[in-house]
Amino acid sequence: MTTIFDDPDEFSEDQLSGFLALYADRLRGVPGGVVSHRTSGAQPQVAVVIGGGSGHYPAFSGVVGPGFAQGAVVGNIFTSPSAAQAYSVAKAADQGRGVVFSFGNYAGDTMNFAIAAARLRKEGIDTRIVLVTDDIASSDEITQRRGIAGDFSVFKAMGAAAAEGLALDEVERVGIASNAATRTLGVAFSGCTMPGATEPLFSVPDGHLGLGLGIHGEPGIRDIELMRAADLADLFVDRLLVERPSGESVRVAPILNGLGTTKYEELFLLWRHISRRLDEVGIELVEPEVGELVTSLDMGGVSLTLQWLDDELERFWRADAYTPAYRKVAAPVAAFVLPAGDDIEASGDVDAPPASDAAMALGGTVREAFGVMHDLLRREEEALGRIDAVAGDGDHGRGMLKGIGAAVGRVVRVDERAGGAWLLSRAGQSWAEQAGGTSGVLWGAALEALGTSLTDDRDDYTALDVVNGVDAFAESIVDLGRASEGDKTMLDALLPFARALRERVEQGVSLAEAWRAAAVLAVAAAAATADLRPKVGRARPLAEKSLGTPDAGATSMGMILTVVGDVLSTPRKSSTEGEPV
Amino acid sequence: MTTIFDDPDEFSEDQLSGFLALYADRLRGVPGGVVSHRTSGAQPQVAVVIGGGSGHYPAFSGVVGPGFAQGAVVGNIFTSPSAAQAYSVAKAADQGRGVVFSFGNYAGDTMNFAIAAARLRKEGIDTRIVLVTDDIASSDEITQRRGIAGDFSVFKAMGAAAAEGLALDEVERVGIASNAATRTLGVAFSGCTMPGATEPLFSVPDGHLGLGLGIHGEPGIRDIELMRAADLADLFVDRLLVERPSGESVRVAPILNGLGTTKYEELFLLWRHISRRLDEVGIELVEPEVGELVTSLDMGGVSLTLQWLDDELERFWRADAYTPAYRKVAAPVAAFVLPAGDDIEASGDVDAPPASDAAMALGGTVREAFGVMHDLLRREEEALGRIDAVAGDGDHGRGMLKGIGAAVGRVVRVDERAGGAWLLSRAGQSWAEQAGGTSGVLWGAALEALGTSLTDDRDDYTALDVVNGVDAFAESIVDLGRASEGDKTMLDALLPFARALRERVEQGVSLAEAWRAAAVLAVAAAAATADLRPKVGRARPLAEKSLGTPDAGATSMGMILTVVGDVLSTPRKSSTEGEPV
Repeated sequence: MTTIFDDPDEFSEDQLSGFLALYADRLRGVPGGVVSHRTSGAQPQVAVVIGGGSGHYPAFSGVVGPGFAQGAVVGNIFTSPSAAQAYSVAKAADQGRGVVFSFGNYAGDTMNFAIAAARLRKEGIDTRIVLVTDDIASSDEITQRRGIAGDFSVFKAMGAAAAEGLALDEVERVGIASNAATRTLGVAFSGCTMPGATEPLFSVPDGHLGLGLGIHGEPGIRDIELMRAADLADLFVDRLLVERPSGESVRVAPILNGLGTTKYEELFLLWRHISRRLDEVGIELVEPEVGELVTSLDMGGVSLTLQWLDDELERFWRADAYTPAYRKVAAPVAAFVLPAGDDIEASGDVDAPPASDAAMALGGTVREAFGVMHDLLRREEEALGRIDAVAGDGDHGRGMLKGIGAAVGRVVRVDERAGGAWLLSRAGQSWAEQAGGTSGVLWGAALEALGTSLTDDRDDYTALDVVNGVDAFAESIVDLGRASEGDKTMLDALLPFARALRERVEQGVSLAEAWRAAAVLAVAAAAATADLRPKVGRARPLAEKSLGTPDAGATSMGMILTVVGDVLSTPRKSSTEGEPV
Repeated sequence: MTTIFDDPDEFSEDQLSGFLALYADRLRGVPGGVVSHRTSGAQPQVAVVIGGGSGHYPAFSGVVGPGFAQGAVVGNIFTSPSAAQAYSVAKAADQGRGVVFSFGNYAGDTMNFAIAAARLRKEGIDTRIVLVTDDIASSDEITQRRGIAGDFSVFKAMGAAAAEGLALDEVERVGIASNAATRTLGVAFSGCTMPGATEPLFSVPDGHLGLGLGIHGEPGIRDIELMRAADLADLFVDRLLVERPSGESVRVAPILNGLGTTKYEELFLLWRHISRRLDEVGIELVEPEVGELVTSLDMGGVSLTLQWLDDELERFWRADAYTPAYRKVAAPVAAFVLPAGDDIEASGDVDAPPASDAAMALGGTVREAFGVMHDLLRREEEALGRIDAVAGDGDHGRGMLKGIGAAVGRVVRVDERAGGAWLLSRAGQSWAEQAGGTSGVLWGAALEALGTSLTDDRDDYTALDVVNGVDAFAESIVDLGRASEGDKTMLDALLPFARALRERVEQGVSLAEAWRAAAVLAVAAAAATADLRPKVGRARPLAEKSLGTPDAGATSMGMILTVVGDVLSTPRKSSTEGEPV
C-alpha cells in the first residue's frame, strides 16, 4: 500500500523534489530528471544516462554519481519518460564525450529514448543506446526479453567504464557485453498498490507465487505453488544455470534483489541457500549484492541476477561508486584483518553430577513435564502470540516455544541418570540463553532457582520440598523482573498459585491435588488480568489498548501450571520409585 | 507478509547465517551475534556493542563496522537476546579498552544486558550501559521511553567517538548526551507478519494511522485519521518541536525512517514537506538520512528522529562509517563542484501564429473536445488501469490522464485566437513530454500529425479535411509504434474507425453522424480485442493472461472517439461561425 502522498497524480514529481532537496550536495534536478555534480579536477567522461518510470528506487535516480550513471531520466510511476525528458537530461549530463542511454527493454522507453537520441545526434552529440534484456522468463529470444534487476549490473559496468575514461565506442561495447553476460529470474509474492489506489495492481493466489515477475505491477507469467526458501533457491539456480551464456566464465557477480516488501532478513536467508548451491557447482561469487536495488513500489517478490564475469567485467563490478543509494568503497574493506580463527569456544558440556535415586526419579518427572510443556506451547504458540500482539509485540508464543525447545533439547542430551535438580538448572540456562526476551530470562532464572532449591542429594522429595521449590521459582522472578502482583505480568498467575499450593499442602492435601486446585486459581487469575493495565515492560505505553485482554505471560503460566499438574497426578510407569515426588 | 523462510522457528538463525556468508570479508559470527573485523594498523578502541531482537535490519548487525558498532547481539525476532549472547559478543568485541552496551529501553534487553555486564565486570572487562529512550509517544517521563529509530543516532555517535579513540568514560558520556539530544515520533500504517504466521500482528483500521508506533509489531498507541503527506509532516514537526530539549542548538541531524513497506519514494515525498517546515522555523539540517534504518519486518510506517546537535555531536554525526548497510564517506561528496546555475532553460512559450476565422472556430472545438476527454479520463482512470493490470503494468489510465491533463494545461495558456491546428500540435507536444510511456509518445505524435494535416489557414474545414486529419493521426501511430491491426493495440480500435469514417463521409453522410457510427464500430472493435494475444509491447510475455481482457489502449481509444463524437454533434453555443467543422 502506498500511503504517503498529497495528490496521487503528482506523486512522481513530489517524490523527486524531496529526493533533490535531500541530495542537493551531490546532484541536481534538470527538466526530466537528475544529473550528477561533476567531481573537482576529473577529466570529462562519457555520460551514461539511464532511466525509466519512477517507483523503482534506487533505480534510477538513486544510482547517479561517481562510478555509476551521470544522469537519470525520471518518468511517471511505471511509465517511460518522454523523449523531451530524455533529451533534456542527456543534454545536461553530456560532458563533450558523448552519451549512452541505457534502460530496460520496453516499447515506451525504446521509442522515447530513440527520439531523444536522434535529436541529440542532430545537434552533434553522439548518442548510443544499450538495452537491458536480462529477464529469462519473458521470452526465449534474448532480444525480446525485458530488463529487470539486471539493469543494475549493466548500468554499473558502463558507469565504471566511463569513470575509467573509456571512449564512447568502448563504453557502448562494455554495455552490450555486460548485458549479454547478465541473466535474471524473479518471482512475485504480491502486487503493489499505486498512490491513491485502494487495490493492488494484481494479486497472487494464496499459497502461490508468480514465476517470472515484472517490475511495473505486471503479474508473474505463471502462478506456481509457494515453496520453502531452500526450494526457491534451487529453482533460481537451476533455471539460471540452464540459461548460462556460452563461454568459459566460472565467476559471477550476483544480485539478490528484493522488490519492496520482501525484506532484508528474508533475502539473507535465501542468499544462504543460493550461495551454497552456486559454491557446490564450482562458481566463484564476486562481491554479491543482496538488497533492494530495483524495486516496484511495495511489491512482494525477489529476483536473482547473475552476471558472468570476464576480467574486464569483474574490474568494473568491483570498482568504487558513490551514489545516494549505492556506495562501494574498496579501501575500508581491504584494510580489514581477517581473524585467525574463532576466539570463543562453545562452552563444553559437563557430565551430570551424581544424584540420589529419588533425584533420578525426579529427573524422570522433570523430563515428562518438559515434554508436556513442549506439546502445549507448540499448540498454543499462535494463540499466545495473538494475545500478546494486542498491546505487545506478539512474540510471547514464539519466545516460550523457543525456551521450552531449548530446555527439552538440553535435557535429551543428558544421560538418564542425571538428577532432576541438575536437569532443571541446565534446562533453565539453555532456556535463558536461547529464548532471549524478558520471559526467557525470567523463566530460565526461575527454573535454575527451582533446581537449586530441590538439590539432587535427597533420599526423597516431599510435597513441602516442592512447595519451597515453587516459592524459590517465584521469588527469582520477583527479584529479577522487579514487578509486583497487579502489574499485569506472569506474577499475577504465579503468586496466587504459590500461595494456594502452600496453603493446601500445609493443610495436608496431597501434592497432586493441591497443585491441581492451585492451577485452577492460576488460570482464573490469569484471565482476570484482562481488567488490569500493565505497569512495567513493553506493553506499558499501550496500557489502554491492553484493557480487555489478559496478559500473555500470565496466560501461558496458567496453562503450564495446569499441564504440569496433570503430570504430577499420573503415576509414571517407568519410575522404579513408585509415586514420584 | 514474511514469505521466505524454511522453518519459521529458525528464521533468526537462518537469516544471520546468510548475512554472515555475505559479509564474511568484513565481520564474523560469534555465538550470539556478529563482531567487526579489526582494521589493519588501527589502535585498540572502546567496543560499542549494540543489540536487540532481529527483524529490524539494518539494526543491528547491519551497522557493525568501522565508525559504527564493533559488535551486535542478535536475538530472535523482536526478542531480546539472552545474557549469554550479550556476554559472548562483548567478550569477542572487547579490545582491552572496555565495552559500552547500547540498546533500546525494553525490559528484556535491560535485564539481559545487565546480567551480561555484571559477568563481564567480574572478569575485569569494564562495561557500561547506555539506554536509548527517544520515543516521545511512549511516555511523558524520558527515562521510561522506548528506543526506536533514535537507536541509530545514539549508536552512530558512540561508534564515531570510539573510532576517534576516546576512552570508555568519554564514549559513555557521548552516548548519554546523544540520547538526551534525540527525539523520535512515529506512525504505523500496517502491522508486520511473522514468518509462518498468516495474519499480521496488528492492523490499523481503514482510513487511520497508529500514532506512536512500536518497532516490535506493537500497534500504535492511538489510532487517528489518515492524513495527506503535508499534514503528516506538520504533525511530526509540531510534536517534535514541543519536545525539543532545552539548550541553544538550532542544528539537527534528522532521520526519516521507513519501517519496511513504506517505500523510498514515499519517504522522499514526505521529506520535502518536513525539510521545508524545519527550514521555516530556522533549523539547520545536517546531513539528513532518509531510508530504512530501523525496520520492523514488513511493517508499514514512518518515523522522524531529530538529534539536536552541539559541535561534538555534529562531528560524530558527520564522521565516516563503513558497514554492510550504512556507508558514509565524506571525500567523494566533498570533491563535488556545485554548478553555478541551471544550464537548461525552460523552453519559452511561442505566441500562436495568425489563424483564419475558421481555424479559430476549430480551436474552440479542439478545446471543447479536450475538455470532455479530460472529464472522461478522470472518470475512467481507475477502470483503464485495472484492464491494463491484467497483463500490463496498470498505468494506462494514469498515463492517459497525465497526457490529457498536459494537453488541457497547454491549451488554456494560449489566447483564444489561436487556431485549432496549432493548438493540436502544441497539445500533442505537451502530451508526449509530460505523459511519457508508449501511449504518451503515440498520442502526442498523433495529435501533432492531426494538427499538421488540418493547418490554420483554411477558410473552412470540410468533413473530408477531418477524415484526412484522422488518417494522418492514425498513420503516425502506425509508423512510430510499428504495430499492425490484430496486434492488440489501440490500432485495433482506431483503424476500423478511420476506414468507416472515410467510407461514410465519402458516401455523403454528415461528419457528426459518420463519426458517431464509426465510433460505435471502434468501441465494438476495442471490446473484440479481448480475443487477441498481444504481439508487441510490455504485455507480450503475458500473452496468455491477456486473453479474455480487451486492450486498454484500444478501450480508451473507443471511449475517446465516442465522447469526441458527442462534441461534434452538439452545435457550440459560443461559436460565432455557426456549425463547427
